[in-house]
Amino acid sequence: MRILVTNDDGILAPGIAALAAALAPLGDIDVVAPESGQSGAAHAITFMAPLITQRVTVGGTLAGWSVDGSPADCVKLAVCELCEQRPDLVVSGINAGSNRGVDVIYSGTVAAAVEAAFIGIPSIAVSLETSAELDFPRAAVHARAIVERAIELAISPGMVLNVNIPRLDRGDPRGVKVVQQSTAPWTDTYDRRTDPRGRAYFWLTDQGDREHEEHDTDLSALRDGYVTITPLQYDLTQYAQLKHLRDAWGDLPRGRS
Amino acid sequence: MRILVTNDDGILAPGIAALAAALAPLGDIDVVAPESGQSGAAHAITFMAPLITQRVTVGGTLAGWSVDGSPADCVKLAVCELCEQRPDLVVSGINAGSNRGVDVIYSGTVAAAVEAAFIGIPSIAVSLETSAELDFPRAAVHARAIVERAIELAISPGMVLNVNIPRLDRGDPRGVKVVQQSTAPWTDTYDRRTDPRGRAYFWLTDQGDREHEEHDTDLSALRDGYVTITPLQYDLTQYAQLKHLRDAWGDLPRGRS
Repeated sequence: MRILVTNDDGILAPGIAALAAALAPLGDIDVVAPESGQSGAAHAITFMAPLITQRVTVGGTLAGWSVDGSPADCVKLAVCELCEQRPDLVVSGINAGSNRGVDVIYSGTVAAAVEAAFIGIPSIAVSLETSAELDFPRAAVHARAIVERAIELAISPGMVLNVNIPRLDRGDPRGVKVVQQSTAPWTDTYDRRTDPRGRAYFWLTDQGDREHEEHDTDLSALRDGYVTITPLQYDLTQYAQLKHLRDAWGDLPRGRS
Repeated sequence: MRILVTNDDGILAPGIAALAAALAPLGDIDVVAPESGQSGAAHAITFMAPLITQRVTVGGTLAGWSVDGSPADCVKLAVCELCEQRPDLVVSGINAGSNRGVDVIYSGTVAAAVEAAFIGIPSIAVSLETSAELDFPRAAVHARAIVERAIELAISPGMVLNVNIPRLDRGDPRGVKVVQQSTAPWTDTYDRRTDPRGRAYFWLTDQGDREHEEHDTDLSALRDGYVTITPLQYDLTQYAQLKHLRDAWGDLPRGRS
């Protein structure tokens, strides 16, 4: 089994080192990751500039390629150019901070996994909930257990699993739950300031807790101390509305052009 | 009706000027858009740096705010801070180039619309297929017709419509089709070069045609000369797999931590 390991925190991040080390017994590992942190990069891709790559060794143990691009760039480039053989599985992470609920849409960690699925390679994104001390080696043990189980279940080419590991400073996870993505919105706030030239600028402050009380979502299960697994899709069609709209739209007035 | 207009090509792009002008008769227009082009920015958000804003007038007619961030940043900041009143509708575009199939995942134009939906505001993303001459004023007539029809149909808070207008240099669109998103993959290729320091770098070249022959998707309908409308969702849960995984996963071996 050939496993491509990537992330969005950058190739120097401790989460990817722990992940690659934990997965090494499962097969041949390629590491291709962004040169620098790409948090919040979502599914950005680079097509107006070239991607510069470098062969790097990090901490004497992690050998791989750094790419000055996004997580999705890394997967594309790894599969097309950098890996000697096509990966059988892509694992992205371990991200410093959870990616659940609508975070999934913003997440570079998840984007790397979705990119793999586009090109027919099953993938798993792994994120660790924030706490004062992020214990990546311990999180990686849980990540490996999930990857092994996923391989046993013979995951299919287009499958993307989004995995979140709860904060570990309060003890071990209570178990594993397969749950849906929450769609509860963030409650964003901005801190407004004025720069020396008189221009207004804004810092996005901590997003508040979601307003909704939920059960059996990634949000609630993670909060309750479970490892969460959410299978994702990349067909964004809202099928219920598709049918409704087809019926309701009728003959669209042609634009007068 | 208050309409927030944004895009991912930047506030100086001709597509947003044409769109804002075409929608002006429908209500009060706010324009908040990226300072510079953000194509391929996907759903990136900025939280490690502040967002600098400027009140600008473009071409003597388009007045609005520029934000040195992504399309999603623009929507968040517009709704939280810059708009005097909460918009009733967000329209994003007109993008120079179509956003259909898996492009939808990469698209900043679509991300702006999805961001609006997160916070409960219905939204419409509009893109114009590339041709030698991009006739945005003509495309805007079609965009306006669709926005008007959507308002008539009383679109709901979480609704996102992804609209693509076919290339107009071959005549008017053949009509409108409500279709699903294609999930056919790109066939990416990279052009490998070596920099003066000996580092390998790669340009993403034109993505080839998708391999699959499809019917009744945004890809096929646009190719056939139709305006396409695809309702999108932002719950990425793959529900069929969710059930299967719940059944199959069983008792996950606990990580030894």
